[in-house]
Amino acid sequence: MVDFSVNAKGMRSSEIRHLMKLAANPSIISFAGGMPGNELFPVDVLDELYNGLSRNAKQVALQYGPTPGYPPLLDSLKSYLQSRGLPFEKQGLIITTGAQQAINLMTKVLIDPGDLIVTEYPSFIGAVAAFKSYGANLTSIELDSDGIDIDKLEKTIDGRASQIKMLYLSPHFHNPAGIIYSEERKRALIKLLSGRPFCLLEDDPYGELYFDEADKPLTVPIKACAGESLPVCYVGTFAKIFGPGLRLGWLLAPQPVIEKCELAKQSMDACSPTFTQVLAHEYLSRGKLAPYVAWVRPIYARRAKLMLDALGETMPDGVSWTTPKGGFYVWVTLPPTIDSTEVLSRSMAEGAAFVIGSAFDPHGVRNNTFRLAFSYTPEEKIEKGIAIIADAIKALM
Amino acid sequence: MVDFSVNAKGMRSSEIRHLMKLAANPSIISFAGGMPGNELFPVDVLDELYNGLSRNAKQVALQYGPTPGYPPLLDSLKSYLQSRGLPFEKQGLIITTGAQQAINLMTKVLIDPGDLIVTEYPSFIGAVAAFKSYGANLTSIELDSDGIDIDKLEKTIDGRASQIKMLYLSPHFHNPAGIIYSEERKRALIKLLSGRPFCLLEDDPYGELYFDEADKPLTVPIKACAGESLPVCYVGTFAKIFGPGLRLGWLLAPQPVIEKCELAKQSMDACSPTFTQVLAHEYLSRGKLAPYVAWVRPIYARRAKLMLDALGETMPDGVSWTTPKGGFYVWVTLPPTIDSTEVLSRSMAEGAAFVIGSAFDPHGVRNNTFRLAFSYTPEEKIEKGIAIIADAIKALM
Repeated sequence: MVDFSVNAKGMRSSEIRHLMKLAANPSIISFAGGMPGNELFPVDVLDELYNGLSRNAKQVALQYGPTPGYPPLLDSLKSYLQSRGLPFEKQGLIITTGAQQAINLMTKVLIDPGDLIVTEYPSFIGAVAAFKSYGANLTSIELDSDGIDIDKLEKTIDGRASQIKMLYLSPHFHNPAGIIYSEERKRALIKLLSGRPFCLLEDDPYGELYFDEADKPLTVPIKACAGESLPVCYVGTFAKIFGPGLRLGWLLAPQPVIEKCELAKQSMDACSPTFTQVLAHEYLSRGKLAPYVAWVRPIYARRAKLMLDALGETMPDGVSWTTPKGGFYVWVTLPPTIDSTEVLSRSMAEGAAFVIGSAFDPHGVRNNTFRLAFSYTPEEKIEKGIAIIADAIKALM
Repeated sequence: MVDFSVNAKGMRSSEIRHLMKLAANPSIISFAGGMPGNELFPVDVLDELYNGLSRNAKQVALQYGPTPGYPPLLDSLKSYLQSRGLPFEKQGLIITTGAQQAINLMTKVLIDPGDLIVTEYPSFIGAVAAFKSYGANLTSIELDSDGIDIDKLEKTIDGRASQIKMLYLSPHFHNPAGIIYSEERKRALIKLLSGRPFCLLEDDPYGELYFDEADKPLTVPIKACAGESLPVCYVGTFAKIFGPGLRLGWLLAPQPVIEKCELAKQSMDACSPTFTQVLAHEYLSRGKLAPYVAWVRPIYARRAKLMLDALGETMPDGVSWTTPKGGFYVWVTLPPTIDSTEVLSRSMAEGAAFVIGSAFDPHGVRNNTFRLAFSYTPEEKIEKGIAIIADAIKALM
């Protein structure tokens, strides 16, 4: 029986519930939700896919499926992942109930209470919550605009090598930091990690969502770049390229890891929803992914540009932020004396919301930061919302 | 990091994969699958529900939802559960990714390694696997045709009271035993358990599937019969009343338990599939459940009768079996010297399959038993399949 109180703050779900309340209140401009705007989902494609299913396919969709996943989806997903350069030799693939379950399974099969997991700072709330729920100890290494600080990572590895069981990274359009790893940083990382006795868990929910075709080479997964000397466990999801409500993610990892995850998943939820797996297979095999992401990328890019322009126009000196090349997020850093909880409180009173920085600190402390998501907010509301937050910050400076 | 090797035998998923291979081989008559036949799913209703959704509802279906569940489904499910007599005062309700996740969550939040869980013998494979995956110790008490042996349960409780953290029961159309608890047995159980310092986990996937309206009163959940002196955690599922591929179950339990489960679920899969929750809400709120179960009950009843008739005609003396009043299963007991693995091997060679008994023994030992499911097999194949198994048994006697 695990003490869950450590997870009570900044949990992803309470965040979502809070946001749904906010979203229901049309007077609040919310940059809090790390999710696509409802109007961006491919509903017409969904109708086409559903209505194209045979009676037999609908029966299969209502039935149990194998724990590793609906076999046709495993095949179509493999083709897709191979097109992104991912290797399949000696690897296994398992469909999970969202990327969250993939992270949870990895933790369940690899981590004993007290084991050390190295994360980035800041890091994804849901991963940190999963790590803590199995009693892991966490240490975090700062990100700069090109990725994790390699020198600090090397010192941590050298100092505590025997305790470390996993390194958790999200190299593409990081949640919440908004940055993407440079190719040089990925190379340095692979060099540093090769031959080490712990696992690299690479989380890649946003890699497809680059704004500029010229940046596509930056989204090649570490798992695709690394050779056999660095066995990477790679997590992805349909959440940002189709819809989170499908609850479908995946884990591509060395076969022995996948076998353990399959056993753990059997008693966790037996299988992921066959219903949505059948639809996801149609989505991939009928070639619906590429046109959807091609359509949605410039929409996110416009929202990001509006947000960055508004930040540039309104934020006082001493406030800095990241400039995303894709994904959903801008990460804002305030002067050290300003607490983002106070900024949030003032902003909410005037009608704008975001997520405070301490939610993304594995130790729940550092809070002169906050996350802005531009993915959920219609264009016409962005400028006004940022102005409200800027006023709140100015009032505290 | 848990040792999963204990789960490697008789796991539900490997069973399912095996079955799917069998099902794909039309020359094998399979009584192995604990699942509805594909032809029994309400596909026309599904079409009506999907095509009746508004564009807005489809967008919501593709979005994240709150961890405890899609709010309209929580409301419609509450109405349904209240119609089955279940109490809601001081209780909480959470939607889970199948009943399997509800059982897993209960184990995660209540059980430390080494804690004792009391189960029935035989017991549901998926629950036993979840219990073992958290390091629980198990002890099991025999079922007779009216339910768990109360005298043996009382002795176990009196002897090991301080170690016991949970009692796991499935009172209605038991998987695999096929029996239903009598009203007297439920009353004796409630009396025995009242005021005890451990939790009763009541698993009720099959309660709606009685064959005879006269037996409906037997399906009132223990949670509905018990007063406040016995706080019961009640698990149910849409798997047998709509389709397992939705991956939707629920847990109705005292509010503090639900709050812990919600926190654990946040880092397990964030939320259950919104897509299928939206459909399940339409299913309940548009009154589709009652006509579906009214249609499917006599189909399962006919399959059960054909199986029981065939058993009576073909089985040699010394073989006994349970007579189900509902659900999916018949549990067969062989003379003590006969091992059901040998029966299975011979039956498979002749074209019939089932699940051996040791898969349902929490200790994986006792094997002069096996489970026959009549839910998946078309009527015209039942007699022939049972004759094959009877011949295999006769050859071993």
